[in-house]
Amino acid sequence: MFDFEFFAPTRVVFGRGVEARTGRLLKELGVSRVLIHYGGGSVVRSGLLDRVAASLDEAGIAHTQLGGVVPNPRLSKVREGTELARQFGAELILAVGGGSVIDSSKAIAYALAEPEYDVWDLYAQKRTAKACFPVACVLTIAAAGSEMSNSSVITNEETGEKRGCRNNLCRLKLAIMNPELTATLPAYQTAAGCTDIMMHTLERYFTQGGNMELTDRIAEGLLRTVMKNALILQDDPANYEARAEVMWASSLSHNDLTGLGADGMDFVSHGLEHELGGMFDVTHGAGLSAVWPSWARYVYRDCLSRFVQFAVNVMDVTPKADDGETALAGIAALEDFFRSIHMPVTLKELGVEPTEEQILAMAASCARGAGGKKGTAKVLYEADMAAIYRMAL
Amino acid sequence: MFDFEFFAPTRVVFGRGVEARTGRLLKELGVSRVLIHYGGGSVVRSGLLDRVAASLDEAGIAHTQLGGVVPNPRLSKVREGTELARQFGAELILAVGGGSVIDSSKAIAYALAEPEYDVWDLYAQKRTAKACFPVACVLTIAAAGSEMSNSSVITNEETGEKRGCRNNLCRLKLAIMNPELTATLPAYQTAAGCTDIMMHTLERYFTQGGNMELTDRIAEGLLRTVMKNALILQDDPANYEARAEVMWASSLSHNDLTGLGADGMDFVSHGLEHELGGMFDVTHGAGLSAVWPSWARYVYRDCLSRFVQFAVNVMDVTPKADDGETALAGIAALEDFFRSIHMPVTLKELGVEPTEEQILAMAASCARGAGGKKGTAKVLYEADMAAIYRMAL
Repeated sequence: MFDFEFFAPTRVVFGRGVEARTGRLLKELGVSRVLIHYGGGSVVRSGLLDRVAASLDEAGIAHTQLGGVVPNPRLSKVREGTELARQFGAELILAVGGGSVIDSSKAIAYALAEPEYDVWDLYAQKRTAKACFPVACVLTIAAAGSEMSNSSVITNEETGEKRGCRNNLCRLKLAIMNPELTATLPAYQTAAGCTDIMMHTLERYFTQGGNMELTDRIAEGLLRTVMKNALILQDDPANYEARAEVMWASSLSHNDLTGLGADGMDFVSHGLEHELGGMFDVTHGAGLSAVWPSWARYVYRDCLSRFVQFAVNVMDVTPKADDGETALAGIAALEDFFRSIHMPVTLKELGVEPTEEQILAMAASCARGAGGKKGTAKVLYEADMAAIYRMAL
Repeated sequence: MFDFEFFAPTRVVFGRGVEARTGRLLKELGVSRVLIHYGGGSVVRSGLLDRVAASLDEAGIAHTQLGGVVPNPRLSKVREGTELARQFGAELILAVGGGSVIDSSKAIAYALAEPEYDVWDLYAQKRTAKACFPVACVLTIAAAGSEMSNSSVITNEETGEKRGCRNNLCRLKLAIMNPELTATLPAYQTAAGCTDIMMHTLERYFTQGGNMELTDRIAEGLLRTVMKNALILQDDPANYEARAEVMWASSLSHNDLTGLGADGMDFVSHGLEHELGGMFDVTHGAGLSAVWPSWARYVYRDCLSRFVQFAVNVMDVTPKADDGETALAGIAALEDFFRSIHMPVTLKELGVEPTEEQILAMAASCARGAGGKKGTAKVLYEADMAAIYRMAL
């Protein structure tokens, strides 16, 4: 087991109707002025925003609102939110939404805490944050795991770069999680969310060396639970128990628990998808399933024992005579699962057909964003990344 | 899935030699004066106490020391530590030891924060804590899980009562965990620790109703991991990987993760053991294995589906024609496991032969301490508790 640190300080309040307690829970944090940050119209139409605002009113917490966060959330919106929060004197950013809204809120919180710097510098890896305002959320999509992660991903729409920033300072103080709020999500979003959840654990699972038995059992249990319940939600989207299992999995899959003791994290599939997201604005989870099978077939020989373990313990593959065959059967089985929940497993199925020039540009940007190389299952360089994009066409 | 809250704010620093960073890590918490609290001579003889003190000196943190905490830690030592910490102006209690030392440190931290009250009132459930001083630890025994739990158990040696107090306020700010420090523990202590770890999850596993798939997979994976590594440690006590798996399991087994979504926690076996500990001063883990099989056979029919699931998923029992048989086979299999690591499965094997009068007194005290009844697998009253003690003779 490799040495590790674990820090998951977010208070989670989970269950039916818990958003009604938002005001009181924020009050316990000693907060009196809040920016409510959200995305599209669904939280308005469903009445959720009004219910949350009413809960804050009841607790005597002043608030202002900013909507309009889009998937692959944009730096310009972060700047707008920062300005508004500053003028209002907000002491906490309350994200009402999913990963994009939470990530955007984290970026605003960074910007508020260190107004003397450009917040994009954190995402461009030019500096490390020293402070961050508190963030809380009312979660409406189970996917990104941003509610417990130390991660935030923002797209600079001027340069087309989608970049992540990891720092424990941005971990949420409070996550209010009601699975009922996800019951009306379209099937495609639900499936993409399940894919994203699984990928956060898969990115930690495929690493080199190191004993990590308890971590592996948690990771494997989480993957199996998400797959089982993703299939249930295909036929029965309002199933509370399935929504609850998936929502809790979203948090545990990205709060570091499923990778502790490993030799780092891979996250190449995420890196490749970030470029697709920056260039073509694809749905994150769908972008991940579109590149993962190609990534896996490109690297599995260099991380064979882990791919074999995955095939047997997660995908129920009966071990073959040859480990390589077992590994490939595991990859094919996950690909089949993605297909079964109508997720793309190629770029074409994703609806994206990049030119060779675009492939080279994405590979270059991905490598550059990672400091030249990336990966723990297998260290990959720009040429490897281009090769995987081509395999995924 | 039942509604739940989850709050595990402890920063964990895990790995080889991490105790050398104690001073710097405490400095990050803004602490300048510390009471170092410990138990017997082993942390002195091993040089650990000196190394920790040197690390504090290096960081410019003033400290004083108090040793002498015993298993089933005593109220009188809590009072002594509180007085010393107050005189010294300690801002944080640093426990160097295992569960007893951490629990005693938590009690001191409660007492310091609310000097106007008697700290025993918290354990006698006469009032609820409103504040608590910060606590940190350098862990030397993997067992109690107190390093991430909200629990603390103290024995009032004047009344013979052993009582627990649960409150999120006492959760540690920092847990420094080096598995190497546990490598020289006697085999009996190691096995008792593994039993205690398993019991924290088992107490959460046997409940009524409620879907909790991800939680169950984590619980089952943890139990299997601890059993596997407890056996390895029988033959190879210095095995780092096995020590590391067991140590990390100790934290996750009692930080609530393995019971989230359940309808409460059972903890009757713990209650029965607390009475044994209060009256006979037995080793906690050994006391638990001595009562669990009798408890399980007393209640399994009222919680049958969970006992069947446990038998199949944890103990690898092949399902029998009758669910009751499957459940009993699972109980017998765990009993066999306890025997295989030389843990007692009866009170006689524990070295304790209570009289009928003592059994009635323990049952009365256990029921009284729990407010008259206790249990989620099956609600038990004083007469049930006496019956289980008799079964366990």
